[in-house]
Amino acid sequence: MAHIDLGVDETRYPGIIGPMRFRPETARPLNELAEVLLRGPHPLSPGERELIAAYVSGLNECEFCCTSHSAFAAAQLDAGMPLVDQVRADLDSAPVPAKLRALLRIAAAVRDDGRKVTPALVEAARAEGASDLEIHDTVLIAAAFCMYNRYVDGLGTLTPDDPSGYAEPARWIIERGYLALTDPDATSPAPD
Amino acid sequence: MAHIDLGVDETRYPGIIGPMRFRPETARPLNELAEVLLRGPHPLSPGERELIAAYVSGLNECEFCCTSHSAFAAAQLDAGMPLVDQVRADLDSAPVPAKLRALLRIAAAVRDDGRKVTPALVEAARAEGASDLEIHDTVLIAAAFCMYNRYVDGLGTLTPDDPSGYAEPARWIIERGYLALTDPDATSPAPD
Repeated sequence: MAHIDLGVDETRYPGIIGPMRFRPETARPLNELAEVLLRGPHPLSPGERELIAAYVSGLNECEFCCTSHSAFAAAQLDAGMPLVDQVRADLDSAPVPAKLRALLRIAAAVRDDGRKVTPALVEAARAEGASDLEIHDTVLIAAAFCMYNRYVDGLGTLTPDDPSGYAEPARWIIERGYLALTDPDATSPAPD
Repeated sequence: MAHIDLGVDETRYPGIIGPMRFRPETARPLNELAEVLLRGPHPLSPGERELIAAYVSGLNECEFCCTSHSAFAAAQLDAGMPLVDQVRADLDSAPVPAKLRALLRIAAAVRDDGRKVTPALVEAARAEGASDLEIHDTVLIAAAFCMYNRYVDGLGTLTPDDPSGYAEPARWIIERGYLALTDPDATSPAPD
């Protein structure tokens, strides 16, 4: 059970969904930010951006965010969950494009401490073709998940046990987008 | 100079202001979140909430965010900058209300890792009269500044040298609010 009374059945509204129901005033900008960063028009595909989110959440050991965004990434990447697992297990050997690997290295540095992003890391990404926008958004996706992860874990919210239960929420988010989470009448995307 | 070309004179648009000009699509939800958390209707005063932001930014050693939100807190707290300095130097002995001290301890735990928020920390805040909303918002303010701090430092933005230059931006923000930062025609709140 969460540290505070979220006013919802946490088995139906697990992880970040409960606090978003509890405080819709903050849920709106939180979801607007996720929508722009992960699903807005962009040179990186939604699957690639969800992979950055899943990777950072894994480094932060936030089980709810890592499992859900891994599912969202896998559902939108041709190589699916095996690729997500490879990136999380060993970024250096994972079969991702060189530009995405360089951006994931920047994301890992941001997660640790913004000051760990060196000119060398940025130049390496640029050498693989990364634009200023891609570097900016990688930094902000990584920084944002350092927030979402702490929000979910800092309130002690419920993490569903069964990872297979995230497939349906993945379809829900991919079809409707993050802003649908702010609709008070929306059905829950929670695993059953 | 920042790691990417922000398209602005960084001496006029330092810290987070430059990236917000570079990417207005993300600046909007970032400022909406700050406006709700730090200035919206609330049992904690804006000064108290800015103090949580400054304290977390200090622990993250993000000089731009810590100096600016310290100025925003000091300008809105009767005890001014001496109190902000005392909280940052030694929370245990700083002359703040017991509820605020307990909430600042929760904020410090969130900054470290969301999982460090223990039932004992939450119960201690509740024993001093903290409500679920105050605990929720403390967790989210601390989590959000783990994002803002990494955004500012991860892009290597400019931090003005002179802390006294933050007094005018403090007046600017207190008068106009965070959403004014998203107005493309707004004058800069930057220190001269």
